[in-house]
Amino acid sequence: ELVRGLAELWGPRPLAGRRAVVTAGPTREALDPVRYLSNRSSGKMGYAVAAAAAAAGAEVVLVSGPVALAPPPGVRRVEVTSAAEMLDAVLAEVAGADLFIATAAVADYRPAVSADRKIKKDSERMELVLERNPDILATVAALPERPFCVGFAAETHDVIGYARGKLEAKGLDLVAANAVGEGQGFDRDDNTLTVLWPGGERALGSGSKRELARALMDIICERLHARD
Amino acid sequence: ELVRGLAELWGPRPLAGRRAVVTAGPTREALDPVRYLSNRSSGKMGYAVAAAAAAAGAEVVLVSGPVALAPPPGVRRVEVTSAAEMLDAVLAEVAGADLFIATAAVADYRPAVSADRKIKKDSERMELVLERNPDILATVAALPERPFCVGFAAETHDVIGYARGKLEAKGLDLVAANAVGEGQGFDRDDNTLTVLWPGGERALGSGSKRELARALMDIICERLHARD
Repeated sequence: ELVRGLAELWGPRPLAGRRAVVTAGPTREALDPVRYLSNRSSGKMGYAVAAAAAAAGAEVVLVSGPVALAPPPGVRRVEVTSAAEMLDAVLAEVAGADLFIATAAVADYRPAVSADRKIKKDSERMELVLERNPDILATVAALPERPFCVGFAAETHDVIGYARGKLEAKGLDLVAANAVGEGQGFDRDDNTLTVLWPGGERALGSGSKRELARALMDIICERLHARD
Repeated sequence: ELVRGLAELWGPRPLAGRRAVVTAGPTREALDPVRYLSNRSSGKMGYAVAAAAAAAGAEVVLVSGPVALAPPPGVRRVEVTSAAEMLDAVLAEVAGADLFIATAAVADYRPAVSADRKIKKDSERMELVLERNPDILATVAALPERPFCVGFAAETHDVIGYARGKLEAKGLDLVAANAVGEGQGFDRDDNTLTVLWPGGERALGSGSKRELARALMDIICERLHARD
């Protein structure tokens, strides 16, 4: 414990002087003042990634959807609810950042209309029209002076195939892929990750989200320095 | 503190020998393995009501949707996710119960189809067809040998009007009405309640959810004994 403490204190801090923006948690998309559309993301992976980036020496801003977690020490948290709010907060923070890590499970769709009043239930069936939310990661990756961009792909099927497709379609620098559903991924303390980049990949296997976040940060540092 | 402790220990336990079933929290209605429709209920009011019923001497079963709360001491908790699961659990527990208190913010609608796989976002707009969930409180109130039935009405507008309508439409014994939205009601520690019954009503004013739950339980006991 002491040895690791000393190593952290005086060991290499590969992200010293770097600014990182991390997104985490779900977003909530309001149907009306009480109802919303969301997903099962607990934010644990993103909070572990933010902590690992801070431990590596980075100045970290964590843009977080609604979760039941305390911000990691040394990390500045910006709390948001919807995808639109998350995009605004990210664009405000990402200027001049070296690293953008999008772990948030942003809702892909939001209700096209959000009612001011609680909707009354007066019919047996109801059609809810949803419209696509902005793609926060693709928006940041398309900025003229963009940071090193890391995405997460949480899928129930063909995880690696979708992750490779996401890497290429959005022009990312790195994607961390994990399987969700059937007791894996969301709202758990452990996870299984495979990291992909243009021309390479590495399976990190299973572990606690804290361990995986540190292993992921090692690869991010390698690739970030390789790019410089 | 000692005096109140003694009063609780030896004071009147008006629900001694009675069985109460309380529902609490939101429900979550799955769109696919990761996405869901839900609402902002924290479960705090329902957990306070379950604790107050136990303090009044009842044997309490708390049927709870997903919340971040520990069950009150002496209360048996049954955890559920969807409205359909909540209805099943309530019907299994309510046989022979003397009191049913429905505080849960049950989702009125669920997706008509829940996908086995995570839905891919390939279109700008999407129509989600929702169908009405079972009305748990109305189902219990319509049972041939029903318990004393208490409902909650959380509304953004015309709270008392809607609450009186709910009391009559579902044939309830008592309704507790509170305003939500604009910083009131959901996910807060305090609340404002008005209690209505056939032929009467009483404003309990504002207070902590714990205080209001005890005041509500006093009225429930009065009405329950008046009916016997």
